[in-house]
Amino acid sequence: MDFPSKLLENAVHQIAQLPGIGKRTALRLALHILKKPEAYAQDLGAAIEDLRKSIIYCEGCHNISDQPLCEICSNVKRDKKLLCVVEDVRDVMAIENTNQYKGLYHVLGGLISPIDGVGPQDLNLSSLTKKIASNTIGEVIFALSSTVEADTTNFYIFKQIEPFGVKTSTIARGIAVGDELEYADEVTLGRSILARIPFDNGVS
Amino acid sequence: MDFPSKLLENAVHQIAQLPGIGKRTALRLALHILKKPEAYAQDLGAAIEDLRKSIIYCEGCHNISDQPLCEICSNVKRDKKLLCVVEDVRDVMAIENTNQYKGLYHVLGGLISPIDGVGPQDLNLSSLTKKIASNTIGEVIFALSSTVEADTTNFYIFKQIEPFGVKTSTIARGIAVGDELEYADEVTLGRSILARIPFDNGVS
Repeated sequence: MDFPSKLLENAVHQIAQLPGIGKRTALRLALHILKKPEAYAQDLGAAIEDLRKSIIYCEGCHNISDQPLCEICSNVKRDKKLLCVVEDVRDVMAIENTNQYKGLYHVLGGLISPIDGVGPQDLNLSSLTKKIASNTIGEVIFALSSTVEADTTNFYIFKQIEPFGVKTSTIARGIAVGDELEYADEVTLGRSILARIPFDNGVS
Repeated sequence: MDFPSKLLENAVHQIAQLPGIGKRTALRLALHILKKPEAYAQDLGAAIEDLRKSIIYCEGCHNISDQPLCEICSNVKRDKKLLCVVEDVRDVMAIENTNQYKGLYHVLGGLISPIDGVGPQDLNLSSLTKKIASNTIGEVIFALSSTVEADTTNFYIFKQIEPFGVKTSTIARGIAVGDELEYADEVTLGRSILARIPFDNGVS
Protein backbone atom coordinates (compact mmCIF):
# COMPACT_ATOMS: atom_id res chain seq x y z
CA MET A 1 0.00 0.00 0.00
CA ASP A 2 1.26 3.49 -0.90
CA PHE A 3 0.05 5.92 1.74
CA PRO A 4 -0.36 9.63 1.01
CA SER A 5 0.81 10.47 4.55
CA LYS A 6 3.53 9.12 6.87
CA LEU A 7 1.30 9.72 9.91
CA LEU A 8 -1.41 7.54 8.41
CA GLU A 9 1.10 4.90 7.34
CA ASN A 10 2.60 4.75 10.84
CA ALA A 11 -0.83 4.49 12.52
CA VAL A 12 -1.92 1.72 10.13
CA HIS A 13 1.38 -0.10 10.66
CA GLN A 14 0.98 0.01 14.46
CA ILE A 15 -2.71 -0.96 14.47
CA ALA A 16 -2.07 -3.83 12.03
CA GLN A 17 0.23 -5.47 14.58
CA LEU A 18 -2.78 -6.33 16.74
CA PRO A 19 -3.92 -9.93 16.37
CA GLY A 20 -6.61 -10.55 13.74
CA ILE A 21 -6.28 -7.05 12.24
CA GLY A 22 -4.80 -6.77 8.76
CA LYS A 23 -3.64 -3.67 6.88
CA ARG A 24 -7.05 -3.04 5.30
CA THR A 25 -8.92 -3.22 8.61
CA ALA A 26 -6.22 -1.08 10.22
CA LEU A 27 -6.73 1.57 7.54
CA ARG A 28 -10.50 1.45 8.10
CA LEU A 29 -9.97 1.93 11.86
CA ALA A 30 -7.48 4.78 11.29
CA LEU A 31 -9.95 6.60 9.02
CA HIS A 32 -12.66 6.09 11.65
CA ILE A 33 -10.40 7.68 14.28
CA LEU A 34 -9.81 10.62 11.92
CA LYS A 35 -13.54 11.22 11.62
CA LYS A 36 -14.15 11.20 15.39
CA PRO A 37 -13.45 14.21 17.66
CA GLU A 38 -9.83 14.67 18.69
CA ALA A 39 -10.71 13.86 22.31
CA TYR A 40 -11.50 10.27 21.33
CA ALA A 41 -8.08 9.71 19.74
CA GLN A 42 -6.44 11.17 22.84
CA ASP A 43 -8.50 9.01 25.20
CA LEU A 44 -7.89 5.87 23.16
CA GLY A 45 -4.15 6.51 22.87
CA ALA A 46 -3.82 7.37 26.57
CA ALA A 47 -5.89 4.33 27.63
CA ILE A 48 -3.58 2.02 25.68
CA GLU A 49 -0.39 3.62 27.03
CA ASP A 50 -1.65 3.76 30.63
CA LEU A 51 -2.86 0.17 30.52
CA ARG A 52 0.57 -1.16 29.64
CA LYS A 53 2.51 1.30 31.83
CA SER A 54 0.50 1.26 35.04
CA ILE A 55 -1.03 -2.20 35.17
CA ILE A 56 -0.36 -4.18 38.34
CA TYR A 57 -0.45 -7.95 38.68
CA CYS A 58 -1.83 -9.21 41.99
CA GLU A 59 0.91 -10.57 44.28
CA GLY A 60 -1.41 -13.37 45.33
CA CYS A 61 -2.96 -14.74 42.17
CA HIS A 62 -1.10 -12.83 39.36
CA ASN A 63 -4.40 -11.58 37.99
CA ILE A 64 -4.59 -8.08 36.50
CA SER A 65 -5.38 -5.64 39.29
CA ASP A 66 -5.32 -2.01 40.37
CA GLN A 67 -3.91 -2.85 43.80
CA PRO A 68 -0.94 -5.00 44.86
CA LEU A 69 -3.46 -7.50 46.24
CA CYS A 70 -6.58 -7.98 44.09
CA GLU A 71 -10.17 -7.79 45.36
CA ILE A 72 -10.58 -11.55 45.31
CA CYS A 73 -7.34 -12.31 47.17
CA SER A 74 -8.05 -9.63 49.78
CA ASN A 75 -11.68 -10.69 50.30
CA VAL A 76 -11.96 -12.36 53.72
CA LYS A 77 -15.15 -14.16 52.70
CA ARG A 78 -13.41 -16.25 49.99
CA ASP A 79 -12.45 -19.83 50.80
CA LYS A 80 -8.64 -19.72 51.05
CA LYS A 81 -8.37 -23.52 50.91
CA LEU A 82 -9.68 -23.75 47.33
CA LEU A 83 -7.32 -22.79 44.50
CA CYS A 84 -8.52 -22.63 40.90
CA VAL A 85 -5.75 -22.69 38.27
CA VAL A 86 -6.68 -20.70 35.11
CA GLU A 87 -4.91 -19.41 32.02
CA ASP A 88 -5.68 -15.68 32.11
CA VAL A 89 -7.95 -12.89 33.36
CA ARG A 90 -10.72 -13.81 30.90
CA ASP A 91 -11.14 -17.18 32.61
CA VAL A 92 -11.32 -15.50 36.03
CA MET A 93 -14.02 -13.16 34.69
CA ALA A 94 -15.94 -16.07 33.16
CA ILE A 95 -15.86 -18.15 36.35
CA GLU A 96 -16.71 -15.12 38.55
CA ASN A 97 -19.73 -14.51 36.29
CA THR A 98 -21.13 -17.94 37.18
CA ASN A 99 -21.33 -17.00 40.90
CA GLN A 100 -20.59 -20.68 41.65
CA TYR A 101 -17.02 -20.38 42.92
CA LYS A 102 -15.96 -18.80 46.19
CA GLY A 103 -12.31 -19.88 46.39
CA LEU A 104 -9.10 -18.21 45.19
CA TYR A 105 -7.47 -18.22 41.76
CA HIS A 106 -4.01 -18.75 40.40
CA VAL A 107 -3.51 -17.13 36.99
CA LEU A 108 -0.79 -18.87 34.93
CA GLY A 109 -0.53 -16.07 32.34
CA GLY A 110 -0.43 -18.53 29.45
CA LEU A 111 -0.13 -22.21 28.56
CA ILE A 112 2.93 -24.34 27.77
CA SER A 113 3.21 -24.21 23.99
CA PRO A 114 6.60 -25.13 22.47
CA ILE A 115 5.35 -24.08 19.01
CA ASP A 116 4.84 -20.51 20.29
CA GLY A 117 8.07 -20.62 22.30
CA VAL A 118 6.25 -20.64 25.66
CA GLY A 119 7.89 -22.93 28.22
CA PRO A 120 7.12 -23.60 31.91
CA GLN A 121 9.55 -20.80 32.91
CA ASP A 122 7.29 -18.25 31.17
CA LEU A 123 4.30 -19.09 33.38
CA ASN A 124 3.57 -18.20 37.02
CA LEU A 125 4.48 -21.68 38.27
CA SER A 126 7.05 -21.24 41.04
CA SER A 127 4.61 -19.25 43.16
CA LEU A 128 2.00 -21.99 42.64
CA THR A 129 4.36 -24.66 43.94
CA LYS A 130 5.23 -22.38 46.89
CA LYS A 131 1.54 -21.93 47.76
CA ILE A 132 0.99 -25.68 47.77
CA ALA A 133 4.21 -26.34 49.70
CA SER A 134 2.97 -23.99 52.41
CA ASN A 135 0.25 -26.57 53.13
CA THR A 136 -2.64 -24.07 53.29
CA ILE A 137 -4.40 -25.31 50.12
CA GLY A 138 -6.92 -28.11 50.48
CA GLU A 139 -7.81 -28.63 46.79
CA VAL A 140 -6.38 -27.50 43.47
CA ILE A 141 -8.96 -27.21 40.67
CA PHE A 142 -7.60 -27.23 37.11
CA ALA A 143 -9.86 -24.99 34.99
CA LEU A 144 -7.92 -24.80 31.73
CA SER A 145 -9.34 -25.00 28.23
CA SER A 146 -9.69 -28.34 26.49
CA THR A 147 -6.73 -28.09 24.10
CA VAL A 148 -3.44 -29.92 23.63
CA GLU A 149 -1.52 -27.00 25.19
CA ALA A 150 -3.88 -26.96 28.18
CA ASP A 151 -3.57 -30.73 28.67
CA THR A 152 0.23 -30.46 28.53
CA THR A 153 0.18 -27.64 31.09
CA ASN A 154 -2.23 -29.57 33.31
CA PHE A 155 0.04 -32.60 33.24
CA TYR A 156 3.18 -30.54 33.91
CA ILE A 157 1.63 -28.82 36.93
CA PHE A 158 0.24 -32.10 38.23
CA LYS A 159 3.72 -33.66 38.16
CA GLN A 160 5.12 -30.63 40.02
CA ILE A 161 2.56 -30.66 42.83
CA GLU A 162 2.04 -34.44 43.07
CA PRO A 163 4.78 -34.88 45.76
CA PHE A 164 2.83 -32.61 48.13
CA GLY A 165 -0.16 -34.98 48.10
CA VAL A 166 -2.67 -32.15 47.64
CA LYS A 167 -6.14 -33.06 46.34
CA THR A 168 -6.55 -32.16 42.66
CA SER A 169 -9.63 -31.96 40.47
CA THR A 170 -10.54 -30.68 37.03
CA ILE A 171 -13.72 -29.00 35.84
CA ALA A 172 -16.28 -31.41 34.36
CA ARG A 173 -16.25 -31.98 30.59
CA GLY A 174 -19.50 -33.00 28.99
CA ILE A 175 -22.52 -31.95 27.00
CA ALA A 176 -23.15 -28.23 27.41
CA VAL A 177 -26.39 -27.25 29.14
CA GLY A 178 -29.00 -26.72 26.42
CA ASP A 179 -27.09 -28.73 23.78
CA GLU A 180 -28.68 -31.52 21.77
CA LEU A 181 -27.06 -34.92 22.16
CA GLU A 182 -27.12 -35.86 18.47
CA TYR A 183 -24.90 -32.90 17.55
CA ALA A 184 -22.30 -33.48 20.27
CA ASP A 185 -18.89 -34.73 19.09
CA GLU A 186 -18.10 -38.34 20.01
CA VAL A 187 -15.13 -37.52 22.26
CA THR A 188 -17.20 -35.19 24.45
CA LEU A 189 -20.18 -37.56 24.49
CA GLY A 190 -17.90 -40.54 25.27
CA ARG A 191 -16.27 -38.69 28.14
CA SER A 192 -19.60 -37.53 29.52
CA ILE A 193 -20.79 -41.16 29.69
CA LEU A 194 -17.59 -42.37 31.38
CA ALA A 195 -17.74 -39.46 33.84
CA ARG A 196 -21.46 -39.88 34.61
CA ILE A 197 -22.68 -38.60 37.98
CA PRO A 198 -25.49 -39.74 40.31
CA PHE A 199 -28.90 -38.46 39.18
CA ASP A 200 -30.14 -35.96 41.76
CA ASN A 201 -33.64 -35.28 40.44
CA GLY A 202 -33.09 -31.56 39.81
CA VAL A 203 -30.50 -28.86 39.82
CA SER A 204 -28.22 -29.06 42.84
CA MET B 1 -18.46 -7.68 32.18
CA ASP B 2 -16.90 -7.14 35.61
CA PHE B 3 -13.30 -6.12 35.17
CA PRO B 4 -10.71 -6.70 37.90
CA SER B 5 -9.02 -3.40 36.99
CA LYS B 6 -10.24 0.09 36.06
CA LEU B 7 -7.28 0.55 33.67
CA LEU B 8 -8.26 -2.59 31.78
CA GLU B 9 -11.93 -1.61 31.79
CA ASN B 10 -11.13 1.84 30.38
CA ALA B 11 -8.88 0.44 27.64
CA VAL B 12 -11.51 -2.14 26.64
CA HIS B 13 -14.20 0.54 26.65
CA GLN B 14 -12.15 2.82 24.36
CA ILE B 15 -11.06 0.06 21.98
CA ALA B 16 -14.63 -1.29 21.73
CA GLN B 17 -15.76 2.04 20.25
CA LEU B 18 -13.91 1.23 17.03
CA PRO B 19 -16.19 -0.08 14.28
CA GLY B 20 -16.54 -3.86 14.11
CA ILE B 21 -14.85 -4.41 17.47
CA GLY B 22 -16.99 -5.67 20.33
CA LYS B 23 -16.17 -5.91 24.03
CA ARG B 24 -14.77 -9.43 23.76
CA THR B 25 -12.44 -8.60 20.87
CA ALA B 26 -11.42 -5.40 22.67
CA LEU B 27 -10.48 -7.44 25.74
CA ARG B 28 -8.46 -9.83 23.56
CA LEU B 29 -6.62 -6.88 22.00
CA ALA B 30 -6.00 -5.26 25.41
CA LEU B 31 -4.52 -8.51 26.78
CA HIS B 32 -2.35 -8.76 23.66
CA ILE B 33 -1.04 -5.23 24.29
CA LEU B 34 -0.27 -6.22 27.90
CA LYS B 35 1.87 -9.15 26.74
CA LYS B 36 3.91 -7.05 24.29
CA PRO B 37 6.85 -4.83 25.35
CA GLU B 38 5.92 -1.44 26.79
CA ALA B 39 7.44 0.30 23.75
CA TYR B 40 4.72 -1.14 21.52
CA ALA B 41 1.89 0.26 23.64
CA GLN B 42 3.62 3.66 23.63
CA ASP B 43 4.15 3.60 19.85
CA LEU B 44 0.58 2.49 19.20
CA GLY B 45 -0.91 5.09 21.54
CA ALA B 46 1.30 7.89 20.17
CA ALA B 47 0.57 6.90 16.55
CA ILE B 48 -3.17 7.15 17.19
CA GLU B 49 -2.92 10.51 19.00
CA ASP B 50 -0.51 12.00 16.45
CA LEU B 51 -2.61 10.82 13.53
CA ARG B 52 -5.67 12.70 14.73
CA LYS B 53 -3.78 15.73 16.06
CA SER B 54 -1.30 16.40 13.26
CA ILE B 55 -3.05 15.17 10.13
CA ILE B 56 -3.31 17.69 7.29
CA TYR B 57 -5.89 17.63 4.53
CA CYS B 58 -4.59 18.79 1.14
CA GLU B 59 -5.85 22.27 0.20
CA GLY B 60 -6.29 21.11 -3.38
CA CYS B 61 -8.05 17.75 -3.23
CA HIS B 62 -8.87 17.34 0.53
CA ASN B 63 -6.96 14.05 0.63
CA ILE B 64 -5.01 13.11 3.76
CA SER B 65 -1.51 14.55 3.43
CA ASP B 66 1.65 15.52 5.29
CA GLN B 67 1.96 18.84 3.42
CA PRO B 68 -0.57 21.62 2.75
CA LEU B 69 -0.55 20.52 -0.90
CA CYS B 70 -0.37 16.75 -1.46
CA GLU B 71 2.11 14.99 -3.75
CA ILE B 72 -0.49 14.43 -6.43
CA CYS B 73 -1.76 18.03 -6.50
CA SER B 74 1.79 19.42 -6.51
CA ASN B 75 3.02 17.03 -9.22
CA VAL B 76 3.51 19.05 -12.43
CA LYS B 77 3.26 15.90 -14.57
CA ARG B 78 -0.39 15.24 -13.63
CA ASP B 79 -3.12 16.28 -16.05
CA LYS B 80 -4.78 19.25 -14.33
CA LYS B 81 -7.76 19.15 -16.69
CA LEU B 82 -8.97 15.75 -15.41
CA LEU B 83 -10.75 15.64 -12.03
CA CYS B 84 -11.74 12.35 -10.41
CA VAL B 85 -14.37 12.61 -7.64
CA VAL B 86 -13.92 9.92 -4.94
CA GLU B 87 -15.28 9.22 -1.48
CA ASP B 88 -12.11 8.94 0.61
CA VAL B 89 -8.37 8.26 0.72
CA ARG B 90 -8.86 4.51 0.21
CA ASP B 91 -10.33 5.16 -3.24
CA VAL B 92 -7.41 7.43 -4.15
CA MET B 93 -5.00 4.68 -3.08
CA ALA B 94 -6.92 2.05 -5.06
CA ILE B 95 -6.98 4.14 -8.25
CA GLU B 96 -3.32 5.15 -7.86
CA ASN B 97 -2.46 1.45 -7.58
CA THR B 98 -3.88 0.81 -11.06
CA ASN B 99 -1.36 3.23 -12.64
CA GLN B 100 -4.08 4.05 -15.19
CA TYR B 101 -5.00 7.55 -14.06
CA LYS B 102 -2.82 10.64 -14.36
CA GLY B 103 -5.28 13.42 -13.50
CA LEU B 104 -6.18 15.05 -10.18
CA TYR B 105 -8.60 13.95 -7.45
CA HIS B 106 -11.32 15.56 -5.41
CA VAL B 107 -11.97 13.73 -2.12
CA LEU B 108 -15.53 14.24 -0.84
CA GLY B 109 -14.83 12.85 2.62
CA GLY B 110 -18.05 10.85 2.68
CA LEU B 111 -21.31 10.24 0.85
CA ILE B 112 -24.73 11.84 1.30
CA SER B 113 -26.57 9.52 3.68
CA PRO B 114 -29.61 10.94 5.52
CA ILE B 115 -29.86 7.75 7.61
CA ASP B 116 -26.38 8.44 9.07
CA GLY B 117 -27.08 12.16 9.34
CA VAL B 118 -24.64 13.08 6.56
CA GLY B 119 -25.90 15.88 4.32
CA PRO B 120 -24.29 17.76 1.41
CA GLN B 121 -22.95 20.39 3.83
CA ASP B 122 -20.78 17.71 5.50
CA LEU B 123 -18.90 16.95 2.28
CA ASN B 124 -16.18 18.91 0.46
CA LEU B 125 -18.61 20.19 -2.18
CA SER B 126 -18.23 24.00 -2.25
CA SER B 127 -14.57 23.74 -3.28
CA LEU B 128 -15.56 21.29 -6.05
CA THR B 129 -18.08 23.76 -7.49
CA LYS B 130 -15.43 26.50 -7.22
CA LYS B 131 -12.90 24.41 -9.15
CA ILE B 132 -15.40 23.79 -11.93
CA ALA B 133 -16.57 27.41 -11.97
CA SER B 134 -12.93 28.46 -12.52
CA ASN B 135 -13.17 26.81 -15.96
CA THR B 136 -9.88 24.92 -15.73
CA ILE B 137 -11.40 21.43 -15.57
CA GLY B 138 -12.07 19.63 -18.86
CA GLU B 139 -13.73 16.48 -17.51
CA VAL B 140 -15.16 15.36 -14.17
CA ILE B 141 -15.00 11.59 -13.57
CA PHE B 142 -17.35 10.19 -10.92
CA ALA B 143 -15.60 7.25 -9.26
CA LEU B 144 -17.92 6.48 -6.35
CA SER B 145 -19.02 3.07 -5.15
CA SER B 146 -22.14 1.44 -6.57
CA THR B 147 -24.51 2.03 -3.65
CA VAL B 148 -27.68 4.04 -3.08
CA GLU B 149 -25.72 6.68 -1.10
CA ALA B 150 -23.15 6.96 -3.88
CA ASP B 151 -25.85 7.29 -6.56
CA THR B 152 -27.56 10.02 -4.51
CA THR B 153 -24.25 11.85 -4.10
CA ASN B 154 -23.47 11.47 -7.81
CA PHE B 155 -26.84 12.92 -8.74
CA TYR B 156 -26.55 15.80 -6.25
CA ILE B 157 -23.09 16.79 -7.57
CA PHE B 158 -24.24 16.44 -11.17
CA LYS B 159 -27.12 18.85 -10.54
CA GLN B 160 -24.69 21.31 -8.90
CA ILE B 161 -22.16 21.32 -11.73
CA GLU B 162 -24.57 20.87 -14.67
CA PRO B 163 -24.96 24.68 -15.22
CA PHE B 164 -21.24 25.00 -15.96
CA GLY B 165 -21.53 22.62 -18.93
CA VAL B 166 -18.44 20.62 -17.92
CA LYS B 167 -18.04 17.14 -19.44
CA THR B 168 -18.90 14.41 -16.92
CA SER B 169 -18.27 10.68 -16.99
CA THR B 170 -18.51 7.77 -14.59
CA ILE B 171 -16.29 4.70 -14.23
CA ALA B 172 -17.53 1.67 -16.22
CA ARG B 173 -19.71 -0.86 -14.42
CA GLY B 174 -19.65 -4.42 -15.69
CA ILE B 175 -18.32 -7.92 -15.27
CA ALA B 176 -15.05 -7.87 -13.31
CA VAL B 177 -11.93 -9.05 -15.14
CA GLY B 178 -11.52 -12.78 -14.43
CA ASP B 179 -15.17 -13.24 -13.37
CA GLU B 180 -17.38 -15.98 -14.80
CA LEU B 181 -20.51 -14.74 -16.56
CA GLU B 182 -22.90 -17.30 -15.08
CA TYR B 183 -22.22 -16.08 -11.52
CA ALA B 184 -22.66 -12.37 -12.29
CA ASP B 185 -25.80 -10.73 -10.87
CA GLU B 186 -28.43 -9.77 -13.44
CA VAL B 187 -28.23 -6.00 -12.84
CA THR B 188 -24.49 -5.90 -13.49
CA LEU B 189 -24.76 -8.23 -16.49
CA GLY B 190 -27.69 -6.25 -17.89
CA ARG B 191 -25.82 -2.96 -17.53
CA SER B 192 -22.68 -4.44 -19.10
CA ILE B 193 -24.70 -5.46 -22.18
CA LEU B 194 -26.35 -2.03 -22.51
CA ALA B 195 -23.00 -0.30 -22.03
CA ARG B 196 -21.15 -2.54 -24.48
CA ILE B 197 -18.02 -1.12 -26.12
CA PRO B 198 -16.41 -1.72 -29.56
CA PHE B 199 -14.31 -4.91 -29.62
CA ASP B 200 -10.67 -3.94 -29.99
CA ASN B 201 -9.09 -7.36 -30.37
CA GLY B 202 -6.92 -7.12 -27.27
CA VAL B 203 -6.22 -5.03 -24.25
CA SER B 204 -6.09 -1.35 -25.06
